[in-house]
Amino acid sequence: MNYLGLLSSLLFLSNLDAFHYSKLAQYVDSHQEEYVEVLREWVAVESDSSNILKRSHVHHMMDVTAQKLRQLGGTVQLINIGNQELPDGQTITLPKVVTAQFGNDVNKSTVCIYGHTDVQPAKPEDGWATDPYNLTEVDGNLYGRGASDNKAPVLAWIHAVEAYKMLDMELPVNVKFVIEGMEETGSNGLDSMILAHRDTFFSDVDYIIISDCGWLSRKPALTYGTRGNCYFFAEVQGPKQDLHSGVYGGTVIEPMTDIVGLLDTLISPSGKILVPGIREAVAPLTDDEWKMYQDIEFDLDHYKSKIGVDQLMYSNKVDLLAHRWRYPTVSIHGIEGAFSDPGTKTVIPAKVTAKFSIRQVPNMEPATVEKQVRDYLHSGFAKRKSPNTLKVTMVIGAKPWLADIQDPLYEAGKAAVKRVFNSEPDMIREGGTIPIAKTFQDVTGKSIIMIPIGGFDDGLHSQNEKISRYNYIEGTKLFIAYLHEVAQIKKDTV
Amino acid sequence: MNYLGLLSSLLFLSNLDAFHYSKLAQYVDSHQEEYVEVLREWVAVESDSSNILKRSHVHHMMDVTAQKLRQLGGTVQLINIGNQELPDGQTITLPKVVTAQFGNDVNKSTVCIYGHTDVQPAKPEDGWATDPYNLTEVDGNLYGRGASDNKAPVLAWIHAVEAYKMLDMELPVNVKFVIEGMEETGSNGLDSMILAHRDTFFSDVDYIIISDCGWLSRKPALTYGTRGNCYFFAEVQGPKQDLHSGVYGGTVIEPMTDIVGLLDTLISPSGKILVPGIREAVAPLTDDEWKMYQDIEFDLDHYKSKIGVDQLMYSNKVDLLAHRWRYPTVSIHGIEGAFSDPGTKTVIPAKVTAKFSIRQVPNMEPATVEKQVRDYLHSGFAKRKSPNTLKVTMVIGAKPWLADIQDPLYEAGKAAVKRVFNSEPDMIREGGTIPIAKTFQDVTGKSIIMIPIGGFDDGLHSQNEKISRYNYIEGTKLFIAYLHEVAQIKKDTV
Repeated sequence: MNYLGLLSSLLFLSNLDAFHYSKLAQYVDSHQEEYVEVLREWVAVESDSSNILKRSHVHHMMDVTAQKLRQLGGTVQLINIGNQELPDGQTITLPKVVTAQFGNDVNKSTVCIYGHTDVQPAKPEDGWATDPYNLTEVDGNLYGRGASDNKAPVLAWIHAVEAYKMLDMELPVNVKFVIEGMEETGSNGLDSMILAHRDTFFSDVDYIIISDCGWLSRKPALTYGTRGNCYFFAEVQGPKQDLHSGVYGGTVIEPMTDIVGLLDTLISPSGKILVPGIREAVAPLTDDEWKMYQDIEFDLDHYKSKIGVDQLMYSNKVDLLAHRWRYPTVSIHGIEGAFSDPGTKTVIPAKVTAKFSIRQVPNMEPATVEKQVRDYLHSGFAKRKSPNTLKVTMVIGAKPWLADIQDPLYEAGKAAVKRVFNSEPDMIREGGTIPIAKTFQDVTGKSIIMIPIGGFDDGLHSQNEKISRYNYIEGTKLFIAYLHEVAQIKKDTV
Repeated sequence: MNYLGLLSSLLFLSNLDAFHYSKLAQYVDSHQEEYVEVLREWVAVESDSSNILKRSHVHHMMDVTAQKLRQLGGTVQLINIGNQELPDGQTITLPKVVTAQFGNDVNKSTVCIYGHTDVQPAKPEDGWATDPYNLTEVDGNLYGRGASDNKAPVLAWIHAVEAYKMLDMELPVNVKFVIEGMEETGSNGLDSMILAHRDTFFSDVDYIIISDCGWLSRKPALTYGTRGNCYFFAEVQGPKQDLHSGVYGGTVIEPMTDIVGLLDTLISPSGKILVPGIREAVAPLTDDEWKMYQDIEFDLDHYKSKIGVDQLMYSNKVDLLAHRWRYPTVSIHGIEGAFSDPGTKTVIPAKVTAKFSIRQVPNMEPATVEKQVRDYLHSGFAKRKSPNTLKVTMVIGAKPWLADIQDPLYEAGKAAVKRVFNSEPDMIREGGTIPIAKTFQDVTGKSIIMIPIGGFDDGLHSQNEKISRYNYIEGTKLFIAYLHEVAQIKKDTV
């Protein structure tokens, strides 16, 4: 049992008017082994949405998700969202979206919890200390791909609802779920699904809650903004097949030479984006923002030591946080089609596809960025006078999102954090993307809050991803408390 | 049965003084199905020497090779050549070198046939139409990794010896074999083995024969030169592990940005090597060379269509052949450690290792090239002021080789080609590397000839490698004829 949690339950129990938080918290504590077991089952499903060869696992994961919600007595649907078009023109079926509903009392508010149960790729040889698809506990941390992003948070929400149900306590709000299986590749198909169900499933939703992010430090946090993401494939095709570099080297212009030359024009050594028009579109940093960033508890030295570098791109806190959260950046992820195995291979790769992304911030527009990047690369390629062909495709175009931190949803969040952790949350933004936040905002017009429960060092998208048992279990309590607090808002302000 | 082969046997049979070529050629024709079956067994062994995870297959391949030679009654040895040091400082056992001896008549010349039974990497998903390790015949072509490079030529030599033995004909020369399992990664360990056995195994060797290359066109060829190869790993290490590009992008200088920047300084868009000192070291093209290149039958349009490009690096025959054979070039093979799978992954790779090679020609020296490249990259890296670390390693440093085409060995080669194919061979060089040729030349002081039997379109090192049944079987006859012709030289000139 967690000491802080217990302390806070004791402190706040007195003024809860019929909200038996401690009973719920005790229920959570006594069921934590079950929660870990379910997470183990979920992590075992290799639901990597970015690799089309793994698509059947994602389909299976959506069935598992639906089944779990059904067992809890929800009204569950698996919604077909059509096909995904691949860069080569082929199509494959998108994973179904799972929706669920618990309660439809018109006198209560309705929250809609969004999450995803697809994951990033993970291969043991990338440097995992444990099998990425076999949840392994070491020193209170639960290691596994998708543990923190986003399987444990989704389960924590389900367990929060379950706790109310199992204790025969009335849910303070109606709870809906929207769980997708394509988040890691840009929530393909979800936009249209939300639009199509705006006047049905989403019509009675008052608030959207997303828990697909992490804290900034060991302090709990609430998140009020995310960056978007424009993810590009730049493919250079030369010879019709790979060639021996001894036999053919010196006679053909190699696609790798071209792609390296193009990638080198994207960003300066110090990190300045060189694609014209990108930096100019960014909303300027306001004095208020500067002040807020200045006040956030953030230890640069600790950040450096956590990621293992001696020097960051910026050496002061405000610049660093600003470039992490509210400025765009270019990352080159890798090259498909070239030699990438250990050892040596004397090959001239015939077709190489560079993958890079530009993080979006207000007021950049994905469609504009797509044109800027495409024009820039094609113009650079034309200057090379290469006989090869270049194809630039934007495969993800996810918008950034920004909330109003004065919204009562955030006040409710602060109260819930106070109850469970007895502290104030950091108000933070997220460098990563939750593509659907912007869509929810635009289509439903409802307020959105992001309540992270992942740790600051969970290693999302990298080797040895984990969530701590502490964050998983206390996070479940936080969600329980939040369901109560968000119901109070309704009473007071709506 | 092959028409040309038959015709040539009939034409030349009359003046063969006791060399019953037609009988040997008929033996070969009637055993060709067996030859294909043995090749199938050899191709099935995934003896990829560049991937240390496949090392056990290479060890097995050397055992298979030794066993085949033993069955033929040779004196066979498996010679331990020690360990291989990996870039990370670890060591693994090198595949043993197989030596064999057939005959030790002091009145005869002794030829030593060099070959290798390791192969380049091959993965079905790289675009193979058939399983690379399951020899598959389509339209007279035998598809499989290592079929042409170098398993079929090694078998053709063994079958040539076998034909003499099975017909109870005396071998015209003593025949030795040296078969290694590390050719594809630079013949690691073979140099010292040759040096150590200079005064024993190699002491009575008169000529070295290598058949690890291919024809230039549909015409048979003899090869008198190869390029060398300096293969580099340039590793940039940044964060201690991969990072989420959303969460961390904009706060760290990414290793991929650095490595792309460095690779982009190696070669100009038109193919000019930018590393100072490399081009200056190259022996100038002589008028004789120019004339010889001018006379070679080589169809640029056919070459373009074969590799599937509209435009080559040079548009006239002499420039193209010269840059293929006797000028250096840079090829960038790929990047290990970055994202290389299909799909999208929003990762900042923490450690990336670029792999590139520079083909060596006279009068470049690998040790000098190593220093030139290392200094150049480190100087460029210093200018970037990156907090990451760079490590440049030359993992292969193989020298070029050049023979005297007036040597009687080449006259014997021409006679053998004339006998089997009734035509003159093209005198060609090879853009690729047979690293050990230079060592044989330096250590034994003996003459070397390269007699290719691979087709010009065999796809060495690329997808869908093959050897045609025609080249495999007629090549075996060529080797039979060459053993006879090389014995004549001894009589006439030594």
